[in-house]
Amino acid sequence: MTRFMDVHHGVKGVTAERMREAYQADLAIEEEEDVHFERTWADPESGTVYCLSEAPSAEAVQRVHERAGHKADEIHPVPLSM
Amino acid sequence: MTRFMDVHHGVKGVTAERMREAYQADLAIEEEEDVHFERTWADPESGTVYCLSEAPSAEAVQRVHERAGHKADEIHPVPLSM
Repeated sequence: MTRFMDVHHGVKGVTAERMREAYQADLAIEEEEDVHFERTWADPESGTVYCLSEAPSAEAVQRVHERAGHKADEIHPVPLSM
Repeated sequence: MTRFMDVHHGVKGVTAERMREAYQADLAIEEEEDVHFERTWADPESGTVYCLSEAPSAEAVQRVHERAGHKADEIHPVPLSM
């Protein structure tokens, strides 16, 4: 398992409610791809969302996000963390 | 206090040791700017580093990073998180 940080752009004005719905949609299916989303953070002003996950691959992270209706724009493995 | 996610580009090949040194350099002076760095993640392959902090302003986050010798390329307030 590897840790990943993925980034979504273009979601200006995202609200706490919309973010919760999107996150719950990910959590509802993540087990099917052996992915676990740990945290997510959003900047409504620039329209940027960051998601931290543990997953077997970037493709698995993307499959969850795509199936949940919000494909990521970037997915980076982040093997180093403190 | 606001939570911020800042991003550093162009650090391809960053090592765990170099990351620890940089992080410790931030922690050593963060109190002087009323900033607290909570977590940091790095992708050595793309050369991207993410830092999560709580701070009074983006400028305060940048002052710590600049004084520690590694100015951030992006600093986003992330008032929403889960």
